[in-house]
Amino acid sequence: MQTQSAPLDLMFQALADPARRGMVARLCRGPASVSELAQPLTMSLPAVMQHLQVLEASGLVTSKKVGRVRTCRLEPKALGTAEQWLAERRASWERRLDRLGDFLAQQPK
Amino acid sequence: MQTQSAPLDLMFQALADPARRGMVARLCRGPASVSELAQPLTMSLPAVMQHLQVLEASGLVTSKKVGRVRTCRLEPKALGTAEQWLAERRASWERRLDRLGDFLAQQPK
Repeated sequence: MQTQSAPLDLMFQALADPARRGMVARLCRGPASVSELAQPLTMSLPAVMQHLQVLEASGLVTSKKVGRVRTCRLEPKALGTAEQWLAERRASWERRLDRLGDFLAQQPK
Repeated sequence: MQTQSAPLDLMFQALADPARRGMVARLCRGPASVSELAQPLTMSLPAVMQHLQVLEASGLVTSKKVGRVRTCRLEPKALGTAEQWLAERRASWERRLDRLGDFLAQQPK
């Protein structure tokens, strides 16, 4: 798990901002240009580019410039890594509840 | 979704640190005292308390002091909120793939 720490740090950090979560939500519906990502956000294009850099550093998003248009894409595998960490925690929690249930069932009435 | 922003900000921020993720992972296996949480971490007790404050502010963990022992507990519902956000994004992504598949299937061969 140690080697997974840094990617998870960057990924959860990237998701800790409503503008960046909005950009991820948009990219889940398909690739988009930076202008398209900026449209629903009330912020300057340089500010959007900064958020994009954070998302790219986390591995959640990739972008490619062709001509004057930079197109951004979601990396669903990266999003899956964050979801998997949470799912493993939930599984661990549910195993605990199962053990508690077994323990209580074994007690004399 | 706007009203959910602040809790998600704090929650993903809380999870963006390996020590705090370690504390959450430990608490998924059951309640623990601050000393028990600190044990596997190579940091001072005040540093652990600071991480605990971040986790409590996010709603992921609650703690209660009885006598001299502060016992920490996971709030699984809060962890579920973060997991749900990611699951909704994945669902949105998968719907997109389905639509792409349908589109391709309708094309003349």
